[in-house]
Amino acid sequence: MSSAVSAERGFSEANSVHVVVESFRNTPDPRLRTVMASLVEHLHAFVKEVEPSHAEWQQAVDFLTAVGQKCDDTRQEFVLLSDVLGVSMLVDAINNRRSTEATDTTVLGPFHMVDSPPRELGATISLDGNGEPCVFTGQVRSADGTPLSGALVDVWQANGAGYYDVQQPDVQPERNLRGLFTTDDDGRFWLRTVVPRYYPIPDDGPVGQLLAATARHPNRPAHIHVIAGAADHEPLTTHVFVEGSPYLDSDTVFGVKQSLIRPVEVVDDPARAAHYRTANPFRLLEFDIVLDPTEARR
Amino acid sequence: MSSAVSAERGFSEANSVHVVVESFRNTPDPRLRTVMASLVEHLHAFVKEVEPSHAEWQQAVDFLTAVGQKCDDTRQEFVLLSDVLGVSMLVDAINNRRSTEATDTTVLGPFHMVDSPPRELGATISLDGNGEPCVFTGQVRSADGTPLSGALVDVWQANGAGYYDVQQPDVQPERNLRGLFTTDDDGRFWLRTVVPRYYPIPDDGPVGQLLAATARHPNRPAHIHVIAGAADHEPLTTHVFVEGSPYLDSDTVFGVKQSLIRPVEVVDDPARAAHYRTANPFRLLEFDIVLDPTEARR
Repeated sequence: MSSAVSAERGFSEANSVHVVVESFRNTPDPRLRTVMASLVEHLHAFVKEVEPSHAEWQQAVDFLTAVGQKCDDTRQEFVLLSDVLGVSMLVDAINNRRSTEATDTTVLGPFHMVDSPPRELGATISLDGNGEPCVFTGQVRSADGTPLSGALVDVWQANGAGYYDVQQPDVQPERNLRGLFTTDDDGRFWLRTVVPRYYPIPDDGPVGQLLAATARHPNRPAHIHVIAGAADHEPLTTHVFVEGSPYLDSDTVFGVKQSLIRPVEVVDDPARAAHYRTANPFRLLEFDIVLDPTEARR
Repeated sequence: MSSAVSAERGFSEANSVHVVVESFRNTPDPRLRTVMASLVEHLHAFVKEVEPSHAEWQQAVDFLTAVGQKCDDTRQEFVLLSDVLGVSMLVDAINNRRSTEATDTTVLGPFHMVDSPPRELGATISLDGNGEPCVFTGQVRSADGTPLSGALVDVWQANGAGYYDVQQPDVQPERNLRGLFTTDDDGRFWLRTVVPRYYPIPDDGPVGQLLAATARHPNRPAHIHVIAGAADHEPLTTHVFVEGSPYLDSDTVFGVKQSLIRPVEVVDDPARAAHYRTANPFRLLEFDIVLDPTEARR
């Protein structure tokens, strides 16, 4: 203990990491011990690099306090902070190292807070009719190309005004623009919805102030959220982004991947319109989804 | 812009720092831009090193939220978090690179929230009499040894039960154990007080839970806080620690420096007791303070 004693009686810039990591040496959970040691190392490296004044340190304390105090049952400001610092996407990337065949993943986002209602193929999820009508369809396949029938496709999105149902409980019908679909024998799903609109993340809190102070806009490009799952396959959380949407090059949460962008085409084909039970011509968004088999089955 | 475009459309573990730092490139304040770039670099390095699961990321979000929500007008849980991670001491060290002659600094702590009342030399600051009587004295000098008369010595401490006045507004008299003294012609100060007691930092919140989960105790060794200031000298914030106190080797905020530890001796000397207007024998804590001249005068 004598070396620890002398170290802890002489905290300095040079030994700060050692002294503080040592203080966590008796942490019973080895994972927590590892995480705290890594946190201390990187946090101290950051502080040593920027050399904050006392006033700047106080500003950081005040900012983090405001972030915590903005949180309530329907608002998670620390998730927004994680999002705009790219941490949410980084955690997503680390937890989704997939085969090159599988569809790319992106963040879940904060709006999957209610269960999507099961709906029949072809049903509409737009209960408020706010937005330009659009058919959304695709095929779910395994990495080797086999269509996956009976796969679940969970879909949710903002309406034509850029709001999710849970953000406008007094305006939108409950479970508006949400649906849980099951693929047919050929692995296909199709549903009617509206073309989603880009929208700002909630920016009336400290994270919004940070974005303003750093000349960043708060917007996300237009997208539909998808969680796809099938027996014996890894579930996949992603978005399909609308080609040509504003902010595709500067999504404030860094969620865009080139592979996830699809056109919303105008289709003039009375037979297909009739098939989808929509007026002709109609707008069509196609997005196929490829899932990796679970490791146990590979 | 084309390289930024392609980078931002393909966020990955490999390019995450580049992509997110780029998003801050238009920050008008160059200092904020530097701080955000450094934060992103070190934060992403931490995430890449520990590879948190989604559940662990959620735990981190929940913890930080709880820290923010524990804060109110009299409780600053993010300061406590900074303290127990050694960040407060690191910021102190960075902002107090002094000459080798000057007294070492340590953290201000959260209890200097009210002004200390000016008192005459020799006055007692123990208004509740809770603790073992003790004389506290010392000389304030410049780095070259010159005594500094008219220097201000601001003193505050916990009582014999380990609590500051502001923690016990219904128990302790207002401004108990606080005093602002002015050194005499020989640069000396002396006052009557009680021997301070070690105490736990507030540990009924998330930081207390972190300490418990990591098998760390919440205690600080016994100390008296001092801020000393004199004309044409750098002000100095420090503690004097009581030799032999528990927790000198494991101060939970890492504030102890060997150079700041002093004995509280028993003095059996009727003449000195009379000089200090205290009963004989008495306990004596001596702590000289050396200040650096301000840079402009060097």
